[in-house]
Amino acid sequence: MTKTQQIRLARRPSGLPGDDTWSLTTEELPGPAEGQLLVKIDFISIDPAMRGWLRDQRSYVPPVGIGEVMRSLDIGTVVESAHPDFAVGDTVSGTFGVTEYTISDGSDVSKVDLTIAPGPTWLGTLGMPGMTAYFGLLEVGKLQAGDTVVVSAAAGAVGSVVGQIAKAKGAEVIGIAGGPEKTRLLTEELGFDAAVDYRNDNVAKRLRELAPQGIDVFFDNVGGDILDAALMNLRRGARVVLCGAISAYNAEQLPPGPSRYMSLLVFRASMTGFVVFDYADRYGEAVAQIAQWLAEGKLESREHVVEGGVARFGETLNMLFSGANNGKLVLAL
Amino acid sequence: MTKTQQIRLARRPSGLPGDDTWSLTTEELPGPAEGQLLVKIDFISIDPAMRGWLRDQRSYVPPVGIGEVMRSLDIGTVVESAHPDFAVGDTVSGTFGVTEYTISDGSDVSKVDLTIAPGPTWLGTLGMPGMTAYFGLLEVGKLQAGDTVVVSAAAGAVGSVVGQIAKAKGAEVIGIAGGPEKTRLLTEELGFDAAVDYRNDNVAKRLRELAPQGIDVFFDNVGGDILDAALMNLRRGARVVLCGAISAYNAEQLPPGPSRYMSLLVFRASMTGFVVFDYADRYGEAVAQIAQWLAEGKLESREHVVEGGVARFGETLNMLFSGANNGKLVLAL
Repeated sequence: MTKTQQIRLARRPSGLPGDDTWSLTTEELPGPAEGQLLVKIDFISIDPAMRGWLRDQRSYVPPVGIGEVMRSLDIGTVVESAHPDFAVGDTVSGTFGVTEYTISDGSDVSKVDLTIAPGPTWLGTLGMPGMTAYFGLLEVGKLQAGDTVVVSAAAGAVGSVVGQIAKAKGAEVIGIAGGPEKTRLLTEELGFDAAVDYRNDNVAKRLRELAPQGIDVFFDNVGGDILDAALMNLRRGARVVLCGAISAYNAEQLPPGPSRYMSLLVFRASMTGFVVFDYADRYGEAVAQIAQWLAEGKLESREHVVEGGVARFGETLNMLFSGANNGKLVLAL
Repeated sequence: MTKTQQIRLARRPSGLPGDDTWSLTTEELPGPAEGQLLVKIDFISIDPAMRGWLRDQRSYVPPVGIGEVMRSLDIGTVVESAHPDFAVGDTVSGTFGVTEYTISDGSDVSKVDLTIAPGPTWLGTLGMPGMTAYFGLLEVGKLQAGDTVVVSAAAGAVGSVVGQIAKAKGAEVIGIAGGPEKTRLLTEELGFDAAVDYRNDNVAKRLRELAPQGIDVFFDNVGGDILDAALMNLRRGARVVLCGAISAYNAEQLPPGPSRYMSLLVFRASMTGFVVFDYADRYGEAVAQIAQWLAEGKLESREHVVEGGVARFGETLNMLFSGANNGKLVLAL
């Protein structure tokens, strides 16, 4: 028997998830039965999408149920195996949840090659955030060389990759982020052409100055006023890629939508939503390309790793909503 | 000399245009100089877009200036001509403005064939509203046979044509309009499969009942709550065509945008704006197709003709905003 602690959803939060949202439980896991493996979790991916999974509403995946282990993507190590495809010592990724150990039947579990990149990178630039950036920018945003690209939450897990892929593809890139530390990161370390600090700048005015000819692709992770500021500064034929709306994720009532949406008409522009899972059969292509850019130094992966047990899950998640992280947020057990 | 009355923009309105928005002026026109023609206006097109032309803001056409003759599309008769391409008695269409007579140099003036349809139809189903419906639905909305199409302001000039073209192309069509008289018109006279009365029905709930599998194309002329109701009921891969937002045209402050816009993400859907002028080089194709549908009885043109002088322009325009018209609103001089 293996003793494990895990985080379960105790009650659905209203607003920012508080301590009473979660319960820390302990259970004993038996050894793996035939066809199963026992995984020790090393890294837990902390994602904005998690807030959506807590809402009892129709979406692209069902909500996490009350009393269930909180859903998460993780990287772990196989510590016992009765499955023909996995050996003790394999590094694997899967939707194992916020737990120390788990029993898996191996479905939707992938082996991870740590010689290409360390575990946290496989949850970020080579994981869902990287896939989201790649397919959102190139397929949904239909990026062309020479485009002017603006990305919000640009210092985050998805945004930092969006901007760097856009640069690698020959675009001019402006990032929007909160505070001088993040904007400095964007322009001085990640190669962005310019950055707007939404906490201290008038975003609409700065975008007009930095992109007087208008924005070709706006990749939005934030929503709210920042989406409106971008909508006011589109170029004719612009593509707005809807990836997220973190400004609204903790709202108790649905906030107003983008009041400038009729700019889409003036600029003959489109706003398109997507879910990265739809591109699952092409992840291999994206991983290969991103790994190559990483190896060539054209792309730099940023992870923000918090060390601690699963008990630190709740506070770590909330770092996303205060903007405390730079790059991909990961909880290392 | 020809004496003519015209309506000029006296001041920019705040909210619904009042009497003080307009001034009625009289002037004397000389006979046409070489290369010019004198046109007597017969029919003036009354369009929701006019409200936008009164705002002093960047858009797809410049605003009407204070003191200028109000912009409008008209049908008229050539009463004097010193232009080689036009003869006395020709019926012509052009952006002549809200006036009884005008002098034109013939640029952007088209001859109109009254054997195909009467003048008001050339301002509606065979004019800009018809072009808007045709290209918006088929090009922007990418209509496929078997699609479920929902159109707002469905009894209006554009909406009534959108619904009928969609039916002609093999779609299932639901119209949204205000009041039982309009919904009856849609289902009993224009061949819509169903209609929702936004004044008396819960629109989101009715759409869910009428299109349980979701909406493939939503053609929006209205904005506001009706747009949100449609966004909640999309099918995966849906196309939202932004044509107008009449619910907001008289708002003194920009109203909130669609709070349900993140439905575009859940449904992998797009929302795209367009301006019909971009399709000008294909109007001939659309006119020929619509004229054929009219001749075959597959499409019925509805005009709401108000008789009166140019002095009745202001009150006639406001009929659009109270929803008093069925079909294309035209002022007949």
